[in-house]
Amino acid sequence: MINLRNDYNQTAHPRVLDAILGASGRRFVGYGTDEVCAEAAGAVRKLCGRAASAAGVHFLVGGTQTNLTAISAFLRPHEAVVAPVSSHIYMHETGAIEAAGHRILNYPSADGKADIASIRALYEVHDNEHMVKPKLLFISQATERGTVYSRAEMAGLREFCDESGLYLYVDGARLANTLVAESCDLSLEELACFADAFYIGGTKNGLLLGEALVIVNPALQEDFRYLMKQRAAILAKGFLLGLQFRAYFEDGLWLELARHANGMATRLREGLRAAGISLFVDNDTNQVFLFAPKDKMPLLEKSVLFEQWAPEEAAGVPIRFVTSWATTEAEVDAVLELF
Amino acid sequence: MINLRNDYNQTAHPRVLDAILGASGRRFVGYGTDEVCAEAAGAVRKLCGRAASAAGVHFLVGGTQTNLTAISAFLRPHEAVVAPVSSHIYMHETGAIEAAGHRILNYPSADGKADIASIRALYEVHDNEHMVKPKLLFISQATERGTVYSRAEMAGLREFCDESGLYLYVDGARLANTLVAESCDLSLEELACFADAFYIGGTKNGLLLGEALVIVNPALQEDFRYLMKQRAAILAKGFLLGLQFRAYFEDGLWLELARHANGMATRLREGLRAAGISLFVDNDTNQVFLFAPKDKMPLLEKSVLFEQWAPEEAAGVPIRFVTSWATTEAEVDAVLELF
Amino acid sequence: MINLRNDYNQTAHPRVLDAILGASGRRFVGYGTDEVCAEAAGAVRKLCGRAASAAGVHFLVGGTQTNLTAISAFLRPHEAVVAPVSSHIYMHETGAIEAAGHRILNYPSADGKADIASIRALYEVHDNEHMVKPKLLFISQATERGTVYSRAEMAGLREFCDESGLYLYVDGARLANTLVAESCDLSLEELACFADAFYIGGTKNGLLLGEALVIVNPALQEDFRYLMKQRAAILAKGFLLGLQFRAYFEDGLWLELARHANGMATRLREGLRAAGISLFVDNDTNQVFLFAPKDKMPLLEKSVLFEQWAPEEAAGVPIRFVTSWATTEAEVDAVLELF
Amino acid sequence: MINLRNDYNQTAHPRVLDAILGASGRRFVGYGTDEVCAEAAGAVRKLCGRAASAAGVHFLVGGTQTNLTAISAFLRPHEAVVAPVSSHIYMHETGAIEAAGHRILNYPSADGKADIASIRALYEVHDNEHMVKPKLLFISQATERGTVYSRAEMAGLREFCDESGLYLYVDGARLANTLVAESCDLSLEELACFADAFYIGGTKNGLLLGEALVIVNPALQEDFRYLMKQRAAILAKGFLLGLQFRAYFEDGLWLELARHANGMATRLREGLRAAGISLFVDNDTNQVFLFAPKDKMPLLEKSVLFEQWAPEEAAGVPIRFVTSWATTEAEVDAVLELF
Repeated sequence: MINLRNDYNQTAHPRVLDAILGASGRRFVGYGTDEVCAEAAGAVRKLCGRAASAAGVHFLVGGTQTNLTAISAFLRPHEAVVAPVSSHIYMHETGAIEAAGHRILNYPSADGKADIASIRALYEVHDNEHMVKPKLLFISQATERGTVYSRAEMAGLREFCDESGLYLYVDGARLANTLVAESCDLSLEELACFADAFYIGGTKNGLLLGEALVIVNPALQEDFRYLMKQRAAILAKGFLLGLQFRAYFEDGLWLELARHANGMATRLREGLRAAGISLFVDNDTNQVFLFAPKDKMPLLEKSVLFEQWAPEEAAGVPIRFVTSWATTEAEVDAVLELF
Repeated sequence: MINLRNDYNQTAHPRVLDAILGASGRRFVGYGTDEVCAEAAGAVRKLCGRAASAAGVHFLVGGTQTNLTAISAFLRPHEAVVAPVSSHIYMHETGAIEAAGHRILNYPSADGKADIASIRALYEVHDNEHMVKPKLLFISQATERGTVYSRAEMAGLREFCDESGLYLYVDGARLANTLVAESCDLSLEELACFADAFYIGGTKNGLLLGEALVIVNPALQEDFRYLMKQRAAILAKGFLLGLQFRAYFEDGLWLELARHANGMATRLREGLRAAGISLFVDNDTNQVFLFAPKDKMPLLEKSVLFEQWAPEEAAGVPIRFVTSWATTEAEVDAVLELF
Repeated sequence: MINLRNDYNQTAHPRVLDAILGASGRRFVGYGTDEVCAEAAGAVRKLCGRAASAAGVHFLVGGTQTNLTAISAFLRPHEAVVAPVSSHIYMHETGAIEAAGHRILNYPSADGKADIASIRALYEVHDNEHMVKPKLLFISQATERGTVYSRAEMAGLREFCDESGLYLYVDGARLANTLVAESCDLSLEELACFADAFYIGGTKNGLLLGEALVIVNPALQEDFRYLMKQRAAILAKGFLLGLQFRAYFEDGLWLELARHANGMATRLREGLRAAGISLFVDNDTNQVFLFAPKDKMPLLEKSVLFEQWAPEEAAGVPIRFVTSWATTEAEVDAVLELF
Repeated sequence: MINLRNDYNQTAHPRVLDAILGASGRRFVGYGTDEVCAEAAGAVRKLCGRAASAAGVHFLVGGTQTNLTAISAFLRPHEAVVAPVSSHIYMHETGAIEAAGHRILNYPSADGKADIASIRALYEVHDNEHMVKPKLLFISQATERGTVYSRAEMAGLREFCDESGLYLYVDGARLANTLVAESCDLSLEELACFADAFYIGGTKNGLLLGEALVIVNPALQEDFRYLMKQRAAILAKGFLLGLQFRAYFEDGLWLELARHANGMATRLREGLRAAGISLFVDNDTNQVFLFAPKDKMPLLEKSVLFEQWAPEEAAGVPIRFVTSWATTEAEVDAVLELF
């Protein structure tokens, strides 16, 4: 069975596993205060460029934990997040943000991207103390639909945030896939200039587990480790994250893995188009959104793990294939054979 | 200046004030455990009929406090409220429900009423542990638009709640105005059969302050006073609420006051229609929603306090007039003169 | 039955009731934004002197609500309160502070007062991110034992707070009784210099209900009304608090009422001492803590409402009498007759 | 440098690492719903015996996360935990339980154990709605002092909990070390009979990371995965925990590792005693609490990582050595050489 259900269905890339194996017998201090974590954090700061030279860099276990810990640390109780309905924090984190006390003001978004008109409308309505106060704009790069914000779009969001007194937070679970996407004209250095905080995902791109949170805005850095500990987000063996991330950033492994994943998605898309299959989202990262012909579904379901994305339409059944660092050409070609 | 901005702009009805004055010199035990509160609670149970004979009845200070205390007492952390965007808890309580940890799943509603199709759609999407679990259906009777649920509509909501394992909670800030509305075929006894919990508003209908929460469902009654105290909703001088509510339910004062308020609204509506003014919500409780001709606005703003409800449209400026137990015919007629 | 159980067992002082009655027929804007509230807030600022000339003044409904709203507004999630075990927030508010997410670090205190040695010890232990961060020192003036902080003691606490980066918050449920106590050398102006925030109690000193919160520290004032609304602490008819507090501060009524209450307590203490009864707390505000002879208990329980404070000891049964603005000499003398 | 600072300073035992390596190339479904997790859960249930045959078994990442997720899932907002001051949730989790809304009622404990007299006293004081309601008794087995509850002690706690309507929750971060301790007459099957819920620690006994929570009481199992997700405690690659725990329970590896750790501690204790060093806690699990002679401190600090436990006393400097599955005899002997 070929698994295109998600990009976190295997253990980890061999170089990541080797990093852990290579530390056998070595003794570390706890809670991520070790020198390997410090090295990995240094690597992150360097990659992020001047804007992040004094950034707080923290390694956490997963995306939900990172979003929850960061957002709840940044906001006062009456302050709200603004995010599209399709965002992970709104749809797939079981109300973790609300459980920490904050509303997520949401708006519809066909392509998963922030829509400044919608955001501005929400912002303008919420203008007095009988309502929550919008304070943090949440976006994902790439979005849940695999689409990518351009440099100009990011600059526009930053400008809006500056006018409106909002923080800009970027969920980067698939940031590597974005940075290497052909359509992406945004660099990591530029992202670090635009965002108040963002994270570089690891779990979906070849680590066992781990996300690297980068807090660029100094005003948001104070006492952050207290908040991590309170949310159970400091790992006793924090060095496990340091070891993985050090390997991840070495010789550009993280971008190499993402490039592979994107390449497999491109191969899939091209093959599907050649087979006359239409896509319902136009993107070039590692998620492929297609209308599967209804009569192909039994065969697909027998041979491939994937997710149905929405109810059947006239154009076919909307399904999603996700490729990863571990997807092979042979797998892609075998899937294409089914169409 | 005539005040039609809301129904809580005066102190209290003379019979309510008299009830407090009459207790001067009398000593009470604290925290609402006195005999006057017990009498008032008994009166509530009696009015609510058999379904509520074992109901928990609690007197709280205001609507936001009642909604917050009740809803947060009833739900586990992953359970969510379902409510229209226009509802008070979503629009005008500064995220109090989220601050207590719960998401409000919201849906648009033109007339302020629950829409079973929207609710069912939300319910069906939220079907696994990566999402919050819808658990409490929140409605207002009357709604924020002054519209009223009929007996058949309430029965339909109850049926849906039973099928779906939801609690039905009714915000009754203007319940008295509903029960005496001509269009309303629902009795208080019936409401008590349909709802798991509801409250009978006092603040907007002639009390200094106070709402009477009725918890019909025994499963929701356990330890409720702990939750009240924790939310700062037990008044040291709880007897002040008992005194007011005893007077409120005596000889049907509460319905008499609501009837007066509704009557004044009807007089307004009739006068406006006669003057060729159109209404943008069709209702028969104590809120009047009209399109004010743009050229009348300066005059109106000079003589009357009211709320603009939405941005100007072709049909005029959408504004709201609210009448109360204290509104006089002379005031209504003076306002009508302005059109 | 004479009621010495507490100081909130009657409605309100006639001048306070008159203030409400006198407003009959008058229309107000809502939520405490009316001019009477503004006048009352001005009176508070004036009484508090220069230190409070830019203070935020807010009227809330009760002590628990005021403590909860203020403290949860001032702290970030990992920050903790430091308070004696006997304090109201620790013993009698059903974990409201913890329900808002904050630990109360507590220490024993025989006389109800802050003990700098204990506080310093707690502060020094809590020195890293695996522990909560002490941030707000909570004291009551008068304390739960009716004792009073002197000017020198307050200065010492302020100094410790400055050294340690703590806010100093003063629960003033019985602040009036303190300010007029013979043993008290602290003025309201001085208190306003020492504290970051404090409240002037009304409920226990002749109002129907109401506390006046004074936020002196500008850093704690931002968006405070949002937090009030979120905690259900903005009254729809906020003008009811304005009306009461305006009367309360007029011609020194608040101090006059407290002076009366203290006087009645002094009369009680003197009479008890003359009758050979010993006191287990030495104080001069409106709470009297005495060892009642065991054989007097049946008679006392038949004629007086009061609270047993602790289990019986060799010296007698520790009980508490509380006097108020409404306690009469005749009542005091009748109680003394029983000994 | 020999590391006796804690038992989580190395990656993982080779058989655990092999379990992960052996899964390379294998594709798993996400979020711990895979068959390896199911097998590991089955192994836990089997080891726990009949009482746990229908237990909910969940794999989480660390101790703080497990305590937070379980306790906040089990309690209503007004319900409190009862735990000794020395417990991990009170001292070393940055108020995570309070951040979830619950007070920890604490009492002093010299040996880290629950003291029924103290607990009963707390329970009896908290008898009305103005106070939190004690609902969950938290203990650690072994305790923070490495001491062990006997079968009779556990039976006594269970009996008290039954009388008082409390849940009994056991933090088993070092449960394996307890079960193999010579002084321990309690079996895992018995523990599963006594506790409502407990966890079997993995992080401190040879896993990379992971704790196995066992919810024995069916009333506490409902919707638990929702609560896990909301607390960010469902790992995307949940199979990593399944792989580790399957290996952990295979052929009794977990007990073997704990036996080794305890053996090294015993060797240490015996050597210390032989060298005339006195211990300040008497226990036989993998923590050694000794008074280090002051003049030995510089040498110790140069050669060994350890924790100072309390300020210096006349008897010496109280320090703690922790042994683990990875501690060698050579290391122990080298440390003993220093005394």
